[in-house]
Amino acid sequence: MDKTEIKNILEQVERGDLSAEDAFIKIKTKPYTDLGFAKIDNERKLRQGSAEVIYGAGKTAEQILQIAQTMIENGEKSVLITRITADTAEYVSKKIPLFYDEISKIGIAGVRPSKSNNGKILVATGGTSDIPVAEEAALTAEFYENNVVRLYDVGVAGIHRLLDNSRDIADAKVIIAVAGMEGALASVIGGLADCPVIAVPTSVGYGASFNGLSALLSMLNSCASGVSVVNIDNGFGAGYLASMINKI
Amino acid sequence: MDKTEIKNILEQVERGDLSAEDAFIKIKTKPYTDLGFAKIDNERKLRQGSAEVIYGAGKTAEQILQIAQTMIENGEKSVLITRITADTAEYVSKKIPLFYDEISKIGIAGVRPSKSNNGKILVATGGTSDIPVAEEAALTAEFYENNVVRLYDVGVAGIHRLLDNSRDIADAKVIIAVAGMEGALASVIGGLADCPVIAVPTSVGYGASFNGLSALLSMLNSCASGVSVVNIDNGFGAGYLASMINKI
Amino acid sequence: MDKTEIKNILEQVERGDLSAEDAFIKIKTKPYTDLGFAKIDNERKLRQGSAEVIYGAGKTAEQILQIAQTMIENGEKSVLITRITADTAEYVSKKIPLFYDEISKIGIAGVRPSKSNNGKILVATGGTSDIPVAEEAALTAEFYENNVVRLYDVGVAGIHRLLDNSRDIADAKVIIAVAGMEGALASVIGGLADCPVIAVPTSVGYGASFNGLSALLSMLNSCASGVSVVNIDNGFGAGYLASMINKI
Amino acid sequence: MDKTEIKNILEQVERGDLSAEDAFIKIKTKPYTDLGFAKIDNERKLRQGSAEVIYGAGKTAEQILQIAQTMIENGEKSVLITRITADTAEYVSKKIPLFYDEISKIGIAGVRPSKSNNGKILVATGGTSDIPVAEEAALTAEFYENNVVRLYDVGVAGIHRLLDNSRDIADAKVIIAVAGMEGALASVIGGLADCPVIAVPTSVGYGASFNGLSALLSMLNSCASGVSVVNIDNGFGAGYLASMINKI
Amino acid sequence: MDKTEIKNILEQVERGDLSAEDAFIKIKTKPYTDLGFAKIDNERKLRQGSAEVIYGAGKTAEQILQIAQTMIENGEKSVLITRITADTAEYVSKKIPLFYDEISKIGIAGVRPSKSNNGKILVATGGTSDIPVAEEAALTAEFYENNVVRLYDVGVAGIHRLLDNSRDIADAKVIIAVAGMEGALASVIGGLADCPVIAVPTSVGYGASFNGLSALLSMLNSCASGVSVVNIDNGFGAGYLASMINKI
Amino acid sequence: MDKTEIKNILEQVERGDLSAEDAFIKIKTKPYTDLGFAKIDNERKLRQGSAEVIYGAGKTAEQILQIAQTMIENGEKSVLITRITADTAEYVSKKIPLFYDEISKIGIAGVRPSKSNNGKILVATGGTSDIPVAEEAALTAEFYENNVVRLYDVGVAGIHRLLDNSRDIADAKVIIAVAGMEGALASVIGGLADCPVIAVPTSVGYGASFNGLSALLSMLNSCASGVSVVNIDNGFGAGYLASMINKI
Amino acid sequence: MDKTEIKNILEQVERGDLSAEDAFIKIKTKPYTDLGFAKIDNERKLRQGSAEVIYGAGKTAEQILQIAQTMIENGEKSVLITRITADTAEYVSKKIPLFYDEISKIGIAGVRPSKSNNGKILVATGGTSDIPVAEEAALTAEFYENNVVRLYDVGVAGIHRLLDNSRDIADAKVIIAVAGMEGALASVIGGLADCPVIAVPTSVGYGASFNGLSALLSMLNSCASGVSVVNIDNGFGAGYLASMINKI
Amino acid sequence: MDKTEIKNILEQVERGDLSAEDAFIKIKTKPYTDLGFAKIDNERKLRQGSAEVIYGAGKTAEQILQIAQTMIENGEKSVLITRITADTAEYVSKKIPLFYDEISKIGIAGVRPSKSNNGKILVATGGTSDIPVAEEAALTAEFYENNVVRLYDVGVAGIHRLLDNSRDIADAKVIIAVAGMEGALASVIGGLADCPVIAVPTSVGYGASFNGLSALLSMLNSCASGVSVVNIDNGFGAGYLASMINKI
Repeated sequence: MDKTEIKNILEQVERGDLSAEDAFIKIKTKPYTDLGFAKIDNERKLRQGSAEVIYGAGKTAEQILQIAQTMIENGEKSVLITRITADTAEYVSKKIPLFYDEISKIGIAGVRPSKSNNGKILVATGGTSDIPVAEEAALTAEFYENNVVRLYDVGVAGIHRLLDNSRDIADAKVIIAVAGMEGALASVIGGLADCPVIAVPTSVGYGASFNGLSALLSMLNSCASGVSVVNIDNGFGAGYLASMINKI
Repeated sequence: MDKTEIKNILEQVERGDLSAEDAFIKIKTKPYTDLGFAKIDNERKLRQGSAEVIYGAGKTAEQILQIAQTMIENGEKSVLITRITADTAEYVSKKIPLFYDEISKIGIAGVRPSKSNNGKILVATGGTSDIPVAEEAALTAEFYENNVVRLYDVGVAGIHRLLDNSRDIADAKVIIAVAGMEGALASVIGGLADCPVIAVPTSVGYGASFNGLSALLSMLNSCASGVSVVNIDNGFGAGYLASMINKI
Repeated sequence: MDKTEIKNILEQVERGDLSAEDAFIKIKTKPYTDLGFAKIDNERKLRQGSAEVIYGAGKTAEQILQIAQTMIENGEKSVLITRITADTAEYVSKKIPLFYDEISKIGIAGVRPSKSNNGKILVATGGTSDIPVAEEAALTAEFYENNVVRLYDVGVAGIHRLLDNSRDIADAKVIIAVAGMEGALASVIGGLADCPVIAVPTSVGYGASFNGLSALLSMLNSCASGVSVVNIDNGFGAGYLASMINKI
Repeated sequence: MDKTEIKNILEQVERGDLSAEDAFIKIKTKPYTDLGFAKIDNERKLRQGSAEVIYGAGKTAEQILQIAQTMIENGEKSVLITRITADTAEYVSKKIPLFYDEISKIGIAGVRPSKSNNGKILVATGGTSDIPVAEEAALTAEFYENNVVRLYDVGVAGIHRLLDNSRDIADAKVIIAVAGMEGALASVIGGLADCPVIAVPTSVGYGASFNGLSALLSMLNSCASGVSVVNIDNGFGAGYLASMINKI
Repeated sequence: MDKTEIKNILEQVERGDLSAEDAFIKIKTKPYTDLGFAKIDNERKLRQGSAEVIYGAGKTAEQILQIAQTMIENGEKSVLITRITADTAEYVSKKIPLFYDEISKIGIAGVRPSKSNNGKILVATGGTSDIPVAEEAALTAEFYENNVVRLYDVGVAGIHRLLDNSRDIADAKVIIAVAGMEGALASVIGGLADCPVIAVPTSVGYGASFNGLSALLSMLNSCASGVSVVNIDNGFGAGYLASMINKI
Repeated sequence: MDKTEIKNILEQVERGDLSAEDAFIKIKTKPYTDLGFAKIDNERKLRQGSAEVIYGAGKTAEQILQIAQTMIENGEKSVLITRITADTAEYVSKKIPLFYDEISKIGIAGVRPSKSNNGKILVATGGTSDIPVAEEAALTAEFYENNVVRLYDVGVAGIHRLLDNSRDIADAKVIIAVAGMEGALASVIGGLADCPVIAVPTSVGYGASFNGLSALLSMLNSCASGVSVVNIDNGFGAGYLASMINKI
Repeated sequence: MDKTEIKNILEQVERGDLSAEDAFIKIKTKPYTDLGFAKIDNERKLRQGSAEVIYGAGKTAEQILQIAQTMIENGEKSVLITRITADTAEYVSKKIPLFYDEISKIGIAGVRPSKSNNGKILVATGGTSDIPVAEEAALTAEFYENNVVRLYDVGVAGIHRLLDNSRDIADAKVIIAVAGMEGALASVIGGLADCPVIAVPTSVGYGASFNGLSALLSMLNSCASGVSVVNIDNGFGAGYLASMINKI
Repeated sequence: MDKTEIKNILEQVERGDLSAEDAFIKIKTKPYTDLGFAKIDNERKLRQGSAEVIYGAGKTAEQILQIAQTMIENGEKSVLITRITADTAEYVSKKIPLFYDEISKIGIAGVRPSKSNNGKILVATGGTSDIPVAEEAALTAEFYENNVVRLYDVGVAGIHRLLDNSRDIADAKVIIAVAGMEGALASVIGGLADCPVIAVPTSVGYGASFNGLSALLSMLNSCASGVSVVNIDNGFGAGYLASMINKI
């Protein structure tokens, strides 16, 4: 919806043909492009502050390409694609410019946004195996032009590795704590930090970790205040939310 | 720790008797009062921005009273007590001034903080039975001097009740979505809002709601971005986190 | 059982050789063809209004072919086969005419039934990844000669996409709501519609979706009335039941 | 919304001040009475064909009374209240006329609707202990003026008790199968019937019945077609849905 | 332990060198052959009435061969091997005579025991996909020289297929009911039969069958008396127990 | 059904008015007394070898009394009632003769059957707290005129207590192993015995015993052959099945 | 078994009437006192190094008294009773000397053992509500004459309270970490300590703590080495094991 | 940290520049080598008595190699690597000396430690399929220079195989009991032994073993004292803890 359209709506209100309430709804809830298999939400940026993201899992390379192209044609400069395989990334990159990070399976079609100097988002992990999820979070936050600091492999079994970096914790405006196994990292960081902590359980572990259930329950039961939780392995969700909080 | 102490530490650093790092730790990690059954964290306000809260469940009336008194003696003007029964509230109020809300089981010892005019925190519920948890969240946020708007009984089975109030959603700086049963409220609000949404599953429901598990899983799997989740019935956690975000 | 047989039974009743009750049972519970590995229920159409369906999963190509051939020889014009792989479909189509849809893995041996103009069955999905299950439901309903309307990718995170199509919801005689993740679609549609809603949880999602458990629980706990649930990914069951209701 | 209001809206459309779509939404999604703790959906009958129901659990006697009174004042002749205790029923009945059934905890404020002669709804139970849930379903269906047939204690462990009543199954237009323990009743009835079967798992049983989970899973996995499931112990939901289907 | 050894022990008792109790223990709890990776229980036939069985899953072809050879060398005429792959069966059959059934993955090394004319064991399945587990049970029972009757694909969704064969149920001395999905077969047979019913849940099904959990819970909660349950897919256990009961 | 009736049926067969198959069904599946809230299965003794049992839980004292009286009027000498409270037992015993055992909550209306000298059924428990369930099993088996031996508090943590009684194990024709906590008793007895072992998990334990789930899973996974499992705390089911096996 | 008995057995070995192996078994596996409802293991001290303990839950006051008396008569100086209520303690203390601690529900009949100066066992808790379980562990360890140090309310949300006491951790020979909620205490201590850590999950918490399941899973998944876990709330088990390790 | 560094710190304390407490922390919590993807804990040997171990799962061959090389360069003679595949082992062995055991997937880089003659650690398994986990435990214990005795395939279904080896149990200073399926081995050994028993549930089994959950719950609920549990399949954790206890 461009400015002319909005002007028209406001003129209707002025003339008394449209109530303020209805006008508000018109502006906030407008059209999408219907590709048959998907309805692209063109006004999401207006309504929610950022454009729709392509969740790559379960979509074919061709579907991802079509959605990305449509979004770029509709005026998006950069399109974030999550959970995109290397093969699909190669397929897409033949038609449109694409940055691709193999560890996190993140792709960025179009122009890669530049980092900003706003408040720091700290992304911490318990172990090395949590890095792919952490990078999904970090790259997502950077896509939305945040200043991201990485602090990896600082799990609670060697608490001094975390305490040695307590200044990073003190400096952060939002923290993303990524951990599998017992997920205790979120509680310990939550107790040290004076900013919101977004906990991301990962499916890393074996046996009674039950694919992330153990870490998920731990984080939900955190005895520290200021901690909230997103879905298992949901690095994107954490990065997006962190950006939202960071920009308040 | 009062200012003199901090001054002393800084002078040690100046003289080279203490590294900056050690000084930082000294200031951030100082004493607590040990009551035997509890260690009261006196420096939490300095370290985390707000004083320790008394979680009333599982403590005797006398224990709650002692902790509250100690905190007030240590300089706190207001002390938040959650999950405190009417009987205990009565016991405590004989010794120290206490505001008590029976629905949410929230008590405030000392002076009740005044509301501020900062950004609005919207607290929404799916149904009437979710109100106790919502009030725990709302009163907690108000304790930390936030401006709280309540929007109750707007569950998704009658979506127009929610849409009619979409301006409240658009105005909020943080939203707390409280719901039991299928917990869909968080996703619908998450799709409408452009601010962080803190989802609180409640144990309201029967049968396959499994004491809040159904709502919890729903909220974790929300297809909307910007939604994170706290523990079942954890109104306090949501209110505290909302306040933290609102003040960024 | 052809008409002669039924006549004979009724004559026995007339002569007093058979009670009405026994005759009823005889007519309702008659023979099946025993293939050794399967007992084909020839009278199901008489008893339940529609012929037996071949559930393809866990059967060999040869077994599926034999059952389909036997049914056609016994007088069925069209035979519905669900969960049939592309390879098996190719094997079967060499011997008997077969329509095959790769997305839903539905096959129809013999003549494909024509659509009718009876009440509309609306099939809605939350996302693009729910389409295979939705198509299983839609093609099943069409097999039983229903008028099917598809409304895909209208998940609750962008509620306006659903509201924009509220006329389709108002027009439907039965609605099938297909969704994974948090499965909130069923509740929202349930609150808008004045007809029965059949909810189909899908195994789409990751982390705490636990292969559809999250959506299943959500749908069972729907706060909207008029919603019932079938098994995870059971598009066929939903399509069959919708047809049954549509023809009442 | 009375007729004058609707007329006004239609005149706006006529004059071109309002699009047809907006008018439709206005009519379908109109006001509710806000009691503070609850928002009563006055237009639900218009939108969904039947008035809102009061779910009594978790509401005080006074709240239930207020909601019922408001609904009657707004023009409802009869108000259905589920899960209402004997004490609350007595409290309410002092102010407004109330029919109360102690077994099912169903209350009907105002005039009790008369039964009709439309298609039969069969309510069957596996055992004696399932009767409270079955009566909730039966009385709900009767509230919506359906013709209900009860068939209790016909569990599959004595299959002849069910087969002896196979005529009732053949005559029904919708069947509600209520069972705890292993919940097999739904599958057996589903295999005999040619109409939709709504399965209601009950929390009856012990040990590994896990409060209805066993029956719930059984019913979801029913090998019979035409079976769908509502929440554990949700007699109301089954009765409401059965009524909806019966009136198609 | 051959007869000479037993004689020696009894002579010690006679001489008073050994108490009756100790002699009993000596005879009941004697040696095994230690292969390092396995301890073969040579006296199991004496102690429990039948020789040890080789559970093939998780053992290499060479390990299975060695154990089978050792048992044959120790005097066993026939050795039962369960869950043995076709490849392993081929490997073993090059060294020792082996009967192999591909459906049930049962192998019999040495001489295949002949069937007897003792009481009938009925093996029934709900569907076609339950046959592999049923055959494991049937072949195990035949290995122990029982008279086995097979009744496959008689699931409760078409109850007449089961009732038509009610004579087989009446004739059986023990029944093995094998079913996946909702597992209702065990309850229905349990209500018809006057002999013990061994229920075997199978992992057949999808969605909320949770790999046999649904059938398992159903069977444990059977409202019919005389039903007991073995592990999911444990055809061998059912066949062995049926044989034990049949020979009492 | 008395002998005259059976004679009549057989005469119909002789005259050719009734097929043998129909006659069989008539004899096996005949009437029940309908009390409204319950359908008493009068022919169960004929069909299944023993009269119906009254499951007392969830029935009122008056309902239990009515069912028991009806059964005695229909010719039963003894009626078994399980899970009957002391209060109900007192109520019933005022009208009809009743033996009552407070530990197991078993009642026997009418004449208490005398013990027989047939094969021994051994009932073993892991601990003292399992005795109530064990007594339910033992008294049920004695009700059906079996010879019962009790062996209590022989849990595997002191294995010699069990081994010291290995003669009882060797003598038994059927064994009922009752245990909570880790439920290992069934496996150890299963490895020592050469007769069927019926395992009864109990809800005894705390923490991760999860009300008997731990014992249930243990018993289902028993590495010993010849072990089958009934529901948690289902002493009656075990006693009934043991009697059935003992009488083969 | 006194020395004379042991001498007799050894003489049999000397005379060749008994093999060394049999003699060993005789000495290790000897008699118990059979009270009917319980079999008291008199030789447990000889075999396992400490006398049997009375688990009070689920036993009557009279049963507990009888067992304690029998043990004292058999020569025990002190008898440990766990989970004994205040009422039962009062009942027992009228007949035999009894120390009773109300917080942990621990009773000690006979003489209370004196503390020793051996290696320190540190008992730490996350919060105040974990103290009852911690005291069960501490008093058990003291019963077995260990030197116990208590460190309560040092949960990870205020990590400095734990670090301030790091010398206690360094000094301990065994550590018992007691925590509910997210159970992270065990991992953090495990990373700091160089001695075995026994983790005890408690059922303290609400919502998704699921009665200790969350803490249990956390502790099992601990990323720290040297940590093992006992059952939820099993303070006794932890204290007993700690004593066993401390005395190695 | 070499001795010079420690000396420096102590001199600071002497001069009063550093408190004893701070010095203690400095020594206990010193540096790690940061490889970017991992932070190697160089002082772990000083702090916890043994060097860090490389958990191979989820790390690339190159990452494992780098960590191992860094540790060797930092002075470690031997480096333990768990869960390392044959391919990775081959890759690593080209650069540094590596012992590799294919069954347990254990690798030892550098010099393989020699066995000692200290107290015996007994490693027992229930079956042949538990051997890989048992070997992970055994080789870990041997890596830390313990004297390990193996006792495999002594499951409780043939209890005499275990009792025949009761001398090994009596001789052990610590026992590791490894078992899948019902996991009863830990309880039986726990009842026989007078030393700590570390129970390791394995994921061996099928059906209701639920990948080790059944064995895990059994072991947690063990009625024997002195038993604690580590994660499913966590042979390393058990071996490490056993070594820790053995060296006390």
